[in-house]
Amino acid sequence: MSKKYVYFFGKGQSEGNTKMKALLGGKGANLAEMAKIGVPVPPGFTISTEVCDYFYKNGKKYPKELQKQIDDNIKKLEKAMGAKLGDEKNPLLVSVRSGAAVSMPGMMDTVLNLGLNDEAVKGMAKKTNNERLAWDAYRRFIDMFGDVVMGVHHEYFEEKLAAIKKKYKAKLDNDLNAAQLKELVGEYKKVYQKHVKKPFPSNAKDQLMAAVNAVFGSWNIPRAVTYRRINRITGLLGTAVNVQSMVFGNMGDTSGTGVAFTRNPSTGDKEFFGEFLINAQGEDVVAGIRTPEPISDLKKEWPHIYKELNDIRHKLEQHYKDMQDVEFTIQEGKLFMLQTRGGKRTGLAAVKLAVDMVKEKMITPKEALMRIEGDQLNQLLFPIFDIKAMAKTKKIAKGLPAGPGAASGQVVFTAKTAVDWKSKGKKVILLRHETSPEDVAGMAAAEGILTSTGGMTSHAAVVARGWGKCCIAGCSALNINYAKKQTTVGKIVIKEGDWLSLDGSTGEVMLGHIKTSSSPVIAGVVENNAIAKKSSIYKMFMQIMQWADEYRKLKVRTNADTPKDSLAARRLGAEGIGLTRTEHMFFEGERIWAIREFILAQNQESRETALKKLLPFQRTDFEGIFKEMNGLSVTIRLLDPPLHEFLPNDAAGQKEMAKRLQIAPAKVTQLVTKLHELNPMLGHRGCRLSITYPELCVMQTTAIIEAACNMAKKGIKVLPEIMIPLIGTKAEFDFLEPIVRQTADAIIKKAKSKIKYLVGTMIEIPRAALTADEVAENAEFFSFGTNDLTQMTFGYSRDDAGVFLPDYLEKKVLDDDPFQTIDQNGVGKLVQTAVKLGRKVRKTLKCGICGEHGGDPESVKFCHKVGLNYVSCSPYRVPIARLAAAQAVIEEKK
Amino acid sequence: MSKKYVYFFGKGQSEGNTKMKALLGGKGANLAEMAKIGVPVPPGFTISTEVCDYFYKNGKKYPKELQKQIDDNIKKLEKAMGAKLGDEKNPLLVSVRSGAAVSMPGMMDTVLNLGLNDEAVKGMAKKTNNERLAWDAYRRFIDMFGDVVMGVHHEYFEEKLAAIKKKYKAKLDNDLNAAQLKELVGEYKKVYQKHVKKPFPSNAKDQLMAAVNAVFGSWNIPRAVTYRRINRITGLLGTAVNVQSMVFGNMGDTSGTGVAFTRNPSTGDKEFFGEFLINAQGEDVVAGIRTPEPISDLKKEWPHIYKELNDIRHKLEQHYKDMQDVEFTIQEGKLFMLQTRGGKRTGLAAVKLAVDMVKEKMITPKEALMRIEGDQLNQLLFPIFDIKAMAKTKKIAKGLPAGPGAASGQVVFTAKTAVDWKSKGKKVILLRHETSPEDVAGMAAAEGILTSTGGMTSHAAVVARGWGKCCIAGCSALNINYAKKQTTVGKIVIKEGDWLSLDGSTGEVMLGHIKTSSSPVIAGVVENNAIAKKSSIYKMFMQIMQWADEYRKLKVRTNADTPKDSLAARRLGAEGIGLTRTEHMFFEGERIWAIREFILAQNQESRETALKKLLPFQRTDFEGIFKEMNGLSVTIRLLDPPLHEFLPNDAAGQKEMAKRLQIAPAKVTQLVTKLHELNPMLGHRGCRLSITYPELCVMQTTAIIEAACNMAKKGIKVLPEIMIPLIGTKAEFDFLEPIVRQTADAIIKKAKSKIKYLVGTMIEIPRAALTADEVAENAEFFSFGTNDLTQMTFGYSRDDAGVFLPDYLEKKVLDDDPFQTIDQNGVGKLVQTAVKLGRKVRKTLKCGICGEHGGDPESVKFCHKVGLNYVSCSPYRVPIARLAAAQAVIEEKK
Repeated sequence: MSKKYVYFFGKGQSEGNTKMKALLGGKGANLAEMAKIGVPVPPGFTISTEVCDYFYKNGKKYPKELQKQIDDNIKKLEKAMGAKLGDEKNPLLVSVRSGAAVSMPGMMDTVLNLGLNDEAVKGMAKKTNNERLAWDAYRRFIDMFGDVVMGVHHEYFEEKLAAIKKKYKAKLDNDLNAAQLKELVGEYKKVYQKHVKKPFPSNAKDQLMAAVNAVFGSWNIPRAVTYRRINRITGLLGTAVNVQSMVFGNMGDTSGTGVAFTRNPSTGDKEFFGEFLINAQGEDVVAGIRTPEPISDLKKEWPHIYKELNDIRHKLEQHYKDMQDVEFTIQEGKLFMLQTRGGKRTGLAAVKLAVDMVKEKMITPKEALMRIEGDQLNQLLFPIFDIKAMAKTKKIAKGLPAGPGAASGQVVFTAKTAVDWKSKGKKVILLRHETSPEDVAGMAAAEGILTSTGGMTSHAAVVARGWGKCCIAGCSALNINYAKKQTTVGKIVIKEGDWLSLDGSTGEVMLGHIKTSSSPVIAGVVENNAIAKKSSIYKMFMQIMQWADEYRKLKVRTNADTPKDSLAARRLGAEGIGLTRTEHMFFEGERIWAIREFILAQNQESRETALKKLLPFQRTDFEGIFKEMNGLSVTIRLLDPPLHEFLPNDAAGQKEMAKRLQIAPAKVTQLVTKLHELNPMLGHRGCRLSITYPELCVMQTTAIIEAACNMAKKGIKVLPEIMIPLIGTKAEFDFLEPIVRQTADAIIKKAKSKIKYLVGTMIEIPRAALTADEVAENAEFFSFGTNDLTQMTFGYSRDDAGVFLPDYLEKKVLDDDPFQTIDQNGVGKLVQTAVKLGRKVRKTLKCGICGEHGGDPESVKFCHKVGLNYVSCSPYRVPIARLAAAQAVIEEKK
Repeated sequence: MSKKYVYFFGKGQSEGNTKMKALLGGKGANLAEMAKIGVPVPPGFTISTEVCDYFYKNGKKYPKELQKQIDDNIKKLEKAMGAKLGDEKNPLLVSVRSGAAVSMPGMMDTVLNLGLNDEAVKGMAKKTNNERLAWDAYRRFIDMFGDVVMGVHHEYFEEKLAAIKKKYKAKLDNDLNAAQLKELVGEYKKVYQKHVKKPFPSNAKDQLMAAVNAVFGSWNIPRAVTYRRINRITGLLGTAVNVQSMVFGNMGDTSGTGVAFTRNPSTGDKEFFGEFLINAQGEDVVAGIRTPEPISDLKKEWPHIYKELNDIRHKLEQHYKDMQDVEFTIQEGKLFMLQTRGGKRTGLAAVKLAVDMVKEKMITPKEALMRIEGDQLNQLLFPIFDIKAMAKTKKIAKGLPAGPGAASGQVVFTAKTAVDWKSKGKKVILLRHETSPEDVAGMAAAEGILTSTGGMTSHAAVVARGWGKCCIAGCSALNINYAKKQTTVGKIVIKEGDWLSLDGSTGEVMLGHIKTSSSPVIAGVVENNAIAKKSSIYKMFMQIMQWADEYRKLKVRTNADTPKDSLAARRLGAEGIGLTRTEHMFFEGERIWAIREFILAQNQESRETALKKLLPFQRTDFEGIFKEMNGLSVTIRLLDPPLHEFLPNDAAGQKEMAKRLQIAPAKVTQLVTKLHELNPMLGHRGCRLSITYPELCVMQTTAIIEAACNMAKKGIKVLPEIMIPLIGTKAEFDFLEPIVRQTADAIIKKAKSKIKYLVGTMIEIPRAALTADEVAENAEFFSFGTNDLTQMTFGYSRDDAGVFLPDYLEKKVLDDDPFQTIDQNGVGKLVQTAVKLGRKVRKTLKCGICGEHGGDPESVKFCHKVGLNYVSCSPYRVPIARLAAAQAVIEEKK
């Protein structure tokens, strides 16, 4: 038997189905599936991707069986439609479309109305009783066939159209009548003849084969090859060709066309949602020239069509087990479905659909979990803009969506002003080139933060996400002038006090004030608000989280530096703290003076004196955190940033410091100069500080362990994990670990306490990952600091990469921002290597991740795959991590 | 038969030999060897390291056979010496020393004069006819035994000595007579009794066993354990104990002591070189209280002793096949050799000894190559200070020996002044915090460069080494004040115009002017000076290089940016260029204005206009380099540094730029601010620049390929290798490679040239190494940029690490500066991985190294081991690399 190359589809008699995408392409498989389950689709046939493969492997020749199979299918199609290709009385018109397994712009797309010629056009006119329609279809076909199939530039046809319109003083194309269109057809054919050097083919089968040829030929044109290369699309046989009978929604008042969703894609409500136009073609709905009517009106106008459509709605939803986005056309009272696909939805709708469909027993909880993307879940957690108010505002710039939610406020340019204005009851947006730890109070006071430089893991972004605060980073269109207290964006000038609105989920910056509404989920979960807990959104959220927790194996911790953040995270489901950054506490109140005194000190004795002042602050902070985390592990990282971060950058601050510490102002300047680093990221920081000044490590260990002993005495269960940052060599760890242990053990012994603690390290230097077997000899846990690990593995400074990363993403040099989603191939390889090497030496080595990636769904799945024990993310990302961790398990089982 | 634990040695009857270091320790094995070949050493015996091992494995007990073996050996020793341990008439005195296979401070060291007691002291007095000598020996023994063996602090004995001296008004110890020393012995014994709670042991065998106990006991004292841990000394059984009969050089005028080298250790000349003192002990020679006589005087005074010593000199040299450093003692006319070891030598001597000994057929050329260290060879290539003049100067500070040789000049603080003063015929030392590409002209004008910050791969260091210029970097004692044109070092003030001298080989900075003499090797090889070529140093150098080239497999290329450097390197043996840094040309003359215009340009068109100005300069540069490198490969790296490096840093420069480019000064400041990066090392540079501005890559490729075609037309054989820097992903390479190829191929086609070129990449980003199999799919060669690879693998900024690296080295957190010697465990692992992955995909992948490590002997050997094709280093390191490459082959064969 000869090999099958062509697959027919038509109501109830499909030869293909949705699973045959590799062979029939996405479009072909989907049309076949719809027809198979009895949905009325315009019949047609698909020439398989194997033909494309054969075509290229055999010098652009087709398999010998092909022509006969096509002919047979044409006959079958003609029979199904009761019309004949090229027939002068009852012509069958078809569309020819390409369709690979993956949607792929760049290839030949669509030829409509194929089958028309000088005879058939008359038949069509007669049959439809609409001469104008027929000639319009014919002239469009010549244009499309000439352009798409034969490469005659569309412009040449446009010129002729313009000339005819001028000649008859027609304003719009629609103003041309049948005769004028007929004249245009004559002109078009001349254009065709001139450029192709052959007359326009009148034989419908010749037209068809030429179009098929064009589709297969377009598979390997440079534009398509480039597209596949850039998008790394490999392993495809080629494209399929879909030949489908044409239906017309513009055949008069019993025809029409529309689009619809099987449920409400904004709210998820179970209602038929969509719109239609009578006597119109699909593009008219999209083009927006006429205003469509809501789908409910169809019920009144054509109740039987509505019923049929509504039945199909239920059928498709039941069949695909998901909300569908459909396109339909009604030709002279007969309904045809042109397309169905999973409908795009808001976060709220995604969650509601998932929960509802489980209730309706359409899907299982497992499937429900797979239906929700992290970002969709996220939308439930943050304030959002009033959609109507938003439509009226002007988008002026776009940056990176660094911190979620929506915020509206008056622009200020310094942290101090932010604090001042906030205290006067104003809402402010803090606008800075970049933020530094000095700005933290101002950032806290602001509704939202906007920076002109810095990426997804810049200081502003990390801090904002930690608080669940709206932040847009790296908005390079801003041209800030601090002196003038203004910024320009193009020609727009924004002054201090002007209103700006930030959409932290899209990165869009809008001029003016937009009303926001807060999240009932956060009110219920974090603020324990009783009313919010009664809301359906809250209940749906809790349901999803419950299901997620049933499946996931990965633990989820949080990155939190204060008791308040710890509590919020715990309520959002955190099972411990994966990262407490001790330095984040250093800026509050008196602490900064103690640390500055430490930096200024000339010898160990005076350094220790300064540290003694810092000790009680640190201890109190840790006590608060231990209390909130009763019974859960708390990982505390020793001081990480370079010391110059604690010195004032500006003249005023330096003057204040001189006064406060009673030293000459020149001395402060000198100190700032001396500590200045060309590449602070690669400088004197992390464990390097404690190796130079072991007293630092002693003080911090003392604060941690004393706090732990104090809390333990009060009946709190404390599980401290002391983390030494920035280890690159075993020797560094081995230098500091005994200092930590000796300090800790002495305190525990003195307090007669029984608390246990771990000493481990952050793996964030490539060398540490490469030599993890050595490091693990003494380190009790690894926490992957994938922010820094990404910086060093790629050689990207997260503060500076904003200059070229957008370009990299646009040029597809990178698929994703590696600071957002872990680079599995490079950074991930180091993580995997380190886990493997580490556990070879220490079987029970606890491994986690505490970089920003801990809250990114793809990265969380990677962490599950490589066998980490936990991920740790900012408090408001905890729910997303829980969901992703569950999805990882479900995907794995597949 | 019972196990042998004790090994006797004595003239001609040794039981051990030099190969038994593991068993007998270094000292024991060497004494045995000397005795074995008939050299007169004071006889003795060694208790093996196996005893130490047994001791610790059996609760500090000894093997039961041991005591008998010791007793037997004592008898043998007594017989050999004709004296008896503890004998009141003819007492045998012995020394007891520890000695492991590796020299190890921290353990118990030495007890001398063991065997003395109240009876024996009298015997010794009588026998030596020197009562004072005997009592002095006795009191010293009690002190040493008490201190070293029993832990009675030396101070307690010193107190008593001081009291006796005061009592008898003696100024020096030597002023005390026999009776007074006898009184002191009584006091010492009381001290001993008081602290040990036991009387001083009078039995000589008890003394001996206590000393043996102390040696074995000291193997595991914390100080020794720490030393072994820090120095990673593992795999030793323990220490051995050497018991050796005492000889005295202070027994009168027929006694004496001395040290000697078998050849001249400064020049390598074949002459007996040393000095001696009559009637003195070893420490007297070292202490420098009396001035020793030259060894030649011995010939006159004691011709038979001289003859015996000279015979031994020849015997030892023949036996060890190397120049020896010996210690000897003459006791009452009888010669004893106490020690022999390989003598320390200057670079000149090392080379001369190696070459001479081959001539003398003592060693093979292979052995000769192994006798010369890279740094020793280096000493032949650079100016050196006049040693006598140097002795008179004051060392005021020490920095990193960043560039070789010696330099003396007047201090200037700006590059401009350096150029001005040089043009007036002055010799200058350029002193800066750090240097930048802007300073290059001034650096070239200076005799030497001195910086207060920056490490071995800082800008100053890299540039200076490239030129073979003296440079000391990171001299942190300098406190520079540019405004005052002065620097302080502690309390010393150095003003502009003051003379400083720099020793680039040690890093020492000296006040004042010191005469330097230049290298005949450089004059002969690089400058082609005919007179220099007749010098013996030149000839020796050439001989060594010839031998090295016979053995080595690794090719040696050079890093050179100018035709002049290329020529010098080629004459020094470079077989191609491994790295031409195109940006180093950007600062000369008009070029800087073209590149600044490029940076300023707002769109592609004006960028291309600016680049067109740069093109002819670049092309000319490349033509010059291709010409000098006729027939050899030349690797040219596309632009690497961030663009802001080409902008002026200071106000004056910015003003000049504004004027020159006819723009507002504020615009320049704005540009500088805009391009400022927090971590430029990880910023917008390398291939990232060309991805943002592909026109840059087009211009540079054009310059390279046009230059190549032009030179090829003139009959020059050109082999260009275009290197894309800072690749981290395959996609980056794949983005730029077609641009390079299209540009290059079009030019070659147009020129109808037949030149071939390669396109490859630098592997300097950890991620590139980890994904080298992907990168190698299209890259034709890899060149490891181990400077940046080290920076990113360790997370160390070479500009900033100077703050903590010295501390790391001192605290032994690091064994070596990883910027100097490649870190085989981490960075090396990446190199090895990349070579393996790359060659899996592309079997013939050419791999080289072009970081500073290419000129470091240990690193060169590593490169050989991992199978690189070549190393590339700065021109003046080429000879060292050739030597090291040969050594790598020889070591491998062992």
